[in-house]
Amino acid sequence: MISVVIIGIGNIGTHLYTAFNKLSNVTVTMLYNRTEKALLPFKNEVNTTTDFTKLPNANVYIIATADDSIAKVSTQLQLQNKLVVHTSGSVPISVLNDKNRKGSFYPLQTFSKGAIVDFKSIPVCIEAENKTDEALLLQLAESVSNSVHKISSEQRKSIHLAAVFVNNFSNHMYQIGQEICEENKVPFSILSPLIQETVAKLNTLSPYNAQTGPAKRNDIGTMQRHITELTNNTHKEIYSVISKSITNTYGKKL
Amino acid sequence: MISVVIIGIGNIGTHLYTAFNKLSNVTVTMLYNRTEKALLPFKNEVNTTTDFTKLPNANVYIIATADDSIAKVSTQLQLQNKLVVHTSGSVPISVLNDKNRKGSFYPLQTFSKGAIVDFKSIPVCIEAENKTDEALLLQLAESVSNSVHKISSEQRKSIHLAAVFVNNFSNHMYQIGQEICEENKVPFSILSPLIQETVAKLNTLSPYNAQTGPAKRNDIGTMQRHITELTNNTHKEIYSVISKSITNTYGKKL
Repeated sequence: MISVVIIGIGNIGTHLYTAFNKLSNVTVTMLYNRTEKALLPFKNEVNTTTDFTKLPNANVYIIATADDSIAKVSTQLQLQNKLVVHTSGSVPISVLNDKNRKGSFYPLQTFSKGAIVDFKSIPVCIEAENKTDEALLLQLAESVSNSVHKISSEQRKSIHLAAVFVNNFSNHMYQIGQEICEENKVPFSILSPLIQETVAKLNTLSPYNAQTGPAKRNDIGTMQRHITELTNNTHKEIYSVISKSITNTYGKKL
Repeated sequence: MISVVIIGIGNIGTHLYTAFNKLSNVTVTMLYNRTEKALLPFKNEVNTTTDFTKLPNANVYIIATADDSIAKVSTQLQLQNKLVVHTSGSVPISVLNDKNRKGSFYPLQTFSKGAIVDFKSIPVCIEAENKTDEALLLQLAESVSNSVHKISSEQRKSIHLAAVFVNNFSNHMYQIGQEICEENKVPFSILSPLIQETVAKLNTLSPYNAQTGPAKRNDIGTMQRHITELTNNTHKEIYSVISKSITNTYGKKL
């Protein structure tokens, strides 16, 4: 049985608690949160506290707070030589306070409050300073996910950066598409099968081989017409720089 | 029974032929192609020709050639007052020669040669100059697709532009993500569930509401670290301009 204390019951903390709670080989012995209010929904089913001095003995302490407060929270913990991990994609484990053993337990997904997630399909990136702790995190991660990866702080930072491109930036491309549709009284839903197919293609083709469009063909006439058609100057800039990047990619490698 | 002649048996022409061929209320009476070679796979099942003077009488002539050759092909047709349509997203119907009635039959999807497509789910945008032709195109389109839209040349141009953002540009975001992963010896597949979830969210949230990430939060520290981390100068530019666009969007509207 692996005992876990979760520190911070925001979005990720709640999803982790829900996932661990379903397992027979993991027990969440306490939820900590800075404010009482966030703990209220859990009080009937698990021990909760707002007091760092009340944390029980456990195998793993998971700090699931905002990136900027991880260092401070790890300093406030009244613990010695325990395994303390955080859940952040962009923070190295070195920010954790030296009085405890350090690690990371990073579920790589975009969590929305209230949305149901199938934790089994979410990749979990783990990191620890020594083999024993790594083995424990591996066991914990494999209990909730079918996709567990040993990842260094440096690699985790690069995954987080790549995630900004494939998630945040592609979502912004959808938003610009929607704005263009709305301006021209076209339903955005008309683009939905195209968006689905673009992602489905990744199952059989690399993004390099799946690329299509005027920039790939270096069709300068169409690109110039498109830029003229755009009404938003920042969207014109985006169109130019991404098209340049696509043209560079295929000009270079073909 | 609607009789159709398909002119140009490239990617879209082939997909249209395959889809029409399955229908009981549509008959493809001839395939035209400039070169004999592309016609060979079809010779046993349908009339084919490389000679514009041999085109039979039909209800609709579909020009499925490259955008730049549509005007020229429409001029070469030895037909008078027939319904001639093209399949392009970015070309207005006005480029078609005046000797025939003009229209458009635009299947909005990214077609890859050899890939099986479920035509029923592909939106088809139709346009015609008069109600009778529009009714015929509507009937033809509704025979192959569950999603048919009457769309003007202006609107079609804007759909094509929006499609560049949601398809070509988001695919390039995946490619940059893959490059970052490769540079740091991380498998790109680790990002696959995130990419799937980003698209799945569109079923319940608008892209505006689904947006997350450092630019949305205006987290300047993380954005600066990310730009420093990127090794490709064009990728740095892309990161800056898209982040600026996201920050503008939420700064403006929140």
